[in-house]
Amino acid sequence: MNYNHRRPLLLLSNDDGYQAKGINSLVEMLRPMADLLVCAPEGPRSGYSCAFTANDPLRLTKRHDEPGLAVYSCTGTPVDCVKLALDQLLPIGADGQQRRPDMVIGGINHGDNGSVNAHYSGTMGVTMEGCLKYIPSVAFSLCDHDPDADFTPLAPYVASITRQVLEQGLPKGVCLNVNFPLVKQFRGVKVCRMAFGTWHNEVETRHHSRGYDYYWMIGHYRNDEPEAEDTDNWALTRGYIAITPTTMDVTAHDYLQTMKQQWNTCGSKL
Amino acid sequence: MNYNHRRPLLLLSNDDGYQAKGINSLVEMLRPMADLLVCAPEGPRSGYSCAFTANDPLRLTKRHDEPGLAVYSCTGTPVDCVKLALDQLLPIGADGQQRRPDMVIGGINHGDNGSVNAHYSGTMGVTMEGCLKYIPSVAFSLCDHDPDADFTPLAPYVASITRQVLEQGLPKGVCLNVNFPLVKQFRGVKVCRMAFGTWHNEVETRHHSRGYDYYWMIGHYRNDEPEAEDTDNWALTRGYIAITPTTMDVTAHDYLQTMKQQWNTCGSKL
Repeated sequence: MNYNHRRPLLLLSNDDGYQAKGINSLVEMLRPMADLLVCAPEGPRSGYSCAFTANDPLRLTKRHDEPGLAVYSCTGTPVDCVKLALDQLLPIGADGQQRRPDMVIGGINHGDNGSVNAHYSGTMGVTMEGCLKYIPSVAFSLCDHDPDADFTPLAPYVASITRQVLEQGLPKGVCLNVNFPLVKQFRGVKVCRMAFGTWHNEVETRHHSRGYDYYWMIGHYRNDEPEAEDTDNWALTRGYIAITPTTMDVTAHDYLQTMKQQWNTCGSKL
Repeated sequence: MNYNHRRPLLLLSNDDGYQAKGINSLVEMLRPMADLLVCAPEGPRSGYSCAFTANDPLRLTKRHDEPGLAVYSCTGTPVDCVKLALDQLLPIGADGQQRRPDMVIGGINHGDNGSVNAHYSGTMGVTMEGCLKYIPSVAFSLCDHDPDADFTPLAPYVASITRQVLEQGLPKGVCLNVNFPLVKQFRGVKVCRMAFGTWHNEVETRHHSRGYDYYWMIGHYRNDEPEAEDTDNWALTRGYIAITPTTMDVTAHDYLQTMKQQWNTCGSKL
């Protein structure tokens, strides 16, 4: 591994696997501005959320190594990839210490990670894991599941957002969830809150010839607040790029105060 | 399945598997007050977060069926269990419609789900999935990984918290993460925010005789704000039961405002 100590070091991962077009497009977009360490799953890991592998051994395989770019695949989850890369794969810096990445970036995901999908997304798992390690972290996703999706139009935005995070940092415990709509021309960029929506008809039942039923998880997403102009869903359906700053502090602070006033448990106030 | 339409219906799941002592203790604690539908993983699924199974077929197996209690196991993740139960296993109510559960409950987990562990927890996956379906949802966890842990002292608190949620409900998008310390006598109950903490030394490397390295995910947790008296970690280490109201809206609302003022992307303000 041959890194330039004067350039930023970015750790990249995803949930579509190291061979996916999305992460390879991301590599091409970011190579001009940084040295890159890629550690991504061996195959598809969509819907893996922040899962890590507690009960099985994991393996790493070096796939590519040239000045400024090293690529590893991992048998585990997106979060495993980040944890293993931070523990095992960091280059040694000019001071003889392990160089910490300047950013962790997830993506570019083949598919929408807006709204409640952020909770299921392995791309967001990558980004949240970076954020939980206090490294500025960003997820990029394109609302297009096509394995051959065209990521080219995203390039200037990916570069601009990455550069700003490198320059300004992000607050502790806050990462960015960036979603690109599938449109011919972006109408602009909006910073948004997460919309509330629900998945419906999530189970498809099939009957096996041996006499049992089995199930596929599928479903249709419904935006439950389609009129809310401050949401990611609203922006995306109107052709805007949506950036949702996302917090690791999931405390419901407002309701915490309500509970203090209204709740008691086994006779004692909270 | 034989349910009493005048009693509440609770959907129970966990990440330790349907045979774990924790979920079976929970069943015993809640049977006096409600009809129970249990749908839990076939085996251990710790660390599965909100993962669902996008790429493999799933199966359900009926394990037990008596008036007021049905138990199913599922080959998938904790979140799969909730999705499949809501789609496939709900009893028909007096009105001829599927009865929606009055609550979704995850646990009782063998191990601590406070602080950032909430992001990795399959028990919280269960609870968040219920909450994302707008059903009042609670996770119970005991800070004891022993498969034979003693859950008896939790019973009055589990009953009291469940009863209050049944009576009062919870705000849309808010669920409860309840953690019990491993102490002889609880000092009381505190409603808390999530502490920030980090996992360290997460990877153990082993060498295989065939000449390659493999890795186990382990690690040691460090509370990064040990003096903060309003956190779950503070309460738990001092013998208090910690209730953290947890929001599904992960938008960083404060930083969203900052970004609107300070950021621009490709030349345009957000």
